[in-house]
Amino acid sequence: MTRVAVLAGGVGAARFLDGLVRVVPPADVTAIVNVGDDIEWAGLHISPDLDTVMYTLADMVNPETGWGLRGESRRTLDRLSELGGPDWFMIGDLDLATHLFRTHWLGQGNPLSTVTRDLVKRAGLELFITPVTDDRLRTMVDTDAGEFSFQDYFVRRRAVDRVHSLRFDGAETARPAPYVVEALNESDVIVIAPSNPFLSIDPLLSVPGLRELVASNRSKVAAVSPIIGGEAVKGPAADILQSMGHDVSALGVARLYEDLAEVFVLDETDAALASTIESETGMRVHIMPTLMTDVEAKMALAAGTLKAALHDG
Amino acid sequence: MTRVAVLAGGVGAARFLDGLVRVVPPADVTAIVNVGDDIEWAGLHISPDLDTVMYTLADMVNPETGWGLRGESRRTLDRLSELGGPDWFMIGDLDLATHLFRTHWLGQGNPLSTVTRDLVKRAGLELFITPVTDDRLRTMVDTDAGEFSFQDYFVRRRAVDRVHSLRFDGAETARPAPYVVEALNESDVIVIAPSNPFLSIDPLLSVPGLRELVASNRSKVAAVSPIIGGEAVKGPAADILQSMGHDVSALGVARLYEDLAEVFVLDETDAALASTIESETGMRVHIMPTLMTDVEAKMALAAGTLKAALHDG
Repeated sequence: MTRVAVLAGGVGAARFLDGLVRVVPPADVTAIVNVGDDIEWAGLHISPDLDTVMYTLADMVNPETGWGLRGESRRTLDRLSELGGPDWFMIGDLDLATHLFRTHWLGQGNPLSTVTRDLVKRAGLELFITPVTDDRLRTMVDTDAGEFSFQDYFVRRRAVDRVHSLRFDGAETARPAPYVVEALNESDVIVIAPSNPFLSIDPLLSVPGLRELVASNRSKVAAVSPIIGGEAVKGPAADILQSMGHDVSALGVARLYEDLAEVFVLDETDAALASTIESETGMRVHIMPTLMTDVEAKMALAAGTLKAALHDG
Repeated sequence: MTRVAVLAGGVGAARFLDGLVRVVPPADVTAIVNVGDDIEWAGLHISPDLDTVMYTLADMVNPETGWGLRGESRRTLDRLSELGGPDWFMIGDLDLATHLFRTHWLGQGNPLSTVTRDLVKRAGLELFITPVTDDRLRTMVDTDAGEFSFQDYFVRRRAVDRVHSLRFDGAETARPAPYVVEALNESDVIVIAPSNPFLSIDPLLSVPGLRELVASNRSKVAAVSPIIGGEAVKGPAADILQSMGHDVSALGVARLYEDLAEVFVLDETDAALASTIESETGMRVHIMPTLMTDVEAKMALAAGTLKAALHDG
């Protein structure tokens, strides 16, 4: 039995998890999910990363975007556009039901982790999916044009602003959600998913105690590079790395994780960086294809990552 | 020029107003609308009476129900049902856009009257529609089974509970919305629409000062009976009147309005009650058909009511 805890952002993490639950029993997997991208939109509480993970694992996700639901429609959003309402955040009619459900039960005083567990169960999933914290934690993006919440920066303003720095509002007082600490301590492997290190993993680790907890478990931690050949596979990782003065490369990412992970899973495209990464960061590099083009590729990446972390690679 | 202010609830008032704006210029009409039935549902602020009035006047209302939108769908609500979410309140996909719009702008700090004006303008309407108050005012129904908000009692519990009394939560400190006092003072006629006297008109008049203001303008006030031959045309008026020990009759309603209105518009079916009403309440009774079956009937009722109120009947 291999128990695995995964630090997860959105699309990349969701795809990794989709492979993982096919190579170990789903009940042995805990996904600890970023909430820094959460947004209150027209009164509704939206948790994009939690939804992306849940929709992907439930095989309900829109395969073209990697987020949102398959067979989605936009009756409400089109009407909201006609009214001149806030239509910049793409919310489909089916997706909206998730947000109404979540907002309703949060409004009744339930913590986000409880509501998430309920949604996950109703989706028929056996893995444990939890927000990293039940407390309010919001990624704020400081740019040339001012400070914005992540969705404001990324969706409304289409990520055009030059980014100076990120700030995780609420982090100082946020507490890990129930079972997060246990899952990290008791799992056999901790995976840092191929997510954006700044926008997905950093906010997770900004919850007091978690960075130290992962670092103290470094010998069982594997990080999967979200960068392949100098490009982020999905999302704004590359732009933001560059904007903030980091190398847009697997090496740049590896440097960020050197105190946290013993194993770094590097795409074969970037194999030439392996020895530099090993000598600079002290991580063991595991080279393999990391592009998750289909179910087989996802499974192979998950299996390879576990194998490397368990030292039997 | 005849300026008219109408104290309005939902369906009955909306139909009356729909006739009224065809017999006087819409810009001379102010609808002062009940908000006691408003509800926060899954984070959204829903104003059923404001929407019913707006949808009806914009010719967007579902003609079969008298509320909601024509051509409505329920993608979101059906999905919410599947999730086991709170699906007892019928919210269509198009209707949802109104609630998102309203909730968004309220969340930005705008008062309900401002947001309403914006929605009314976008619907292309020229009459002035305003909530009676921008403050929180909620009709609470005390029943055999406990106290419920109006929508809880009426929709979720299907109005099966025996009603003891009503209470208007927030009424003590509610202030009239902008222009409400002016509209009542400056209009040539005030109409109490054929709405539920307890559930639509009483909450309106529970805003401090408004009952006295209407009473002090009694000579220009006409009330239209919502009861025809002992039956409420629409909604729970009859049940509630009975439940609370009142006559389910035009006479019962007339007694409630005797200090407020000089004219009482009585359906011809109830003509036999006219002399009793006149002698008991001191109101002048105007007998005419009050059932608003089509546009002509709505126009005739509006015209007849104005004529009676203006003493040229």
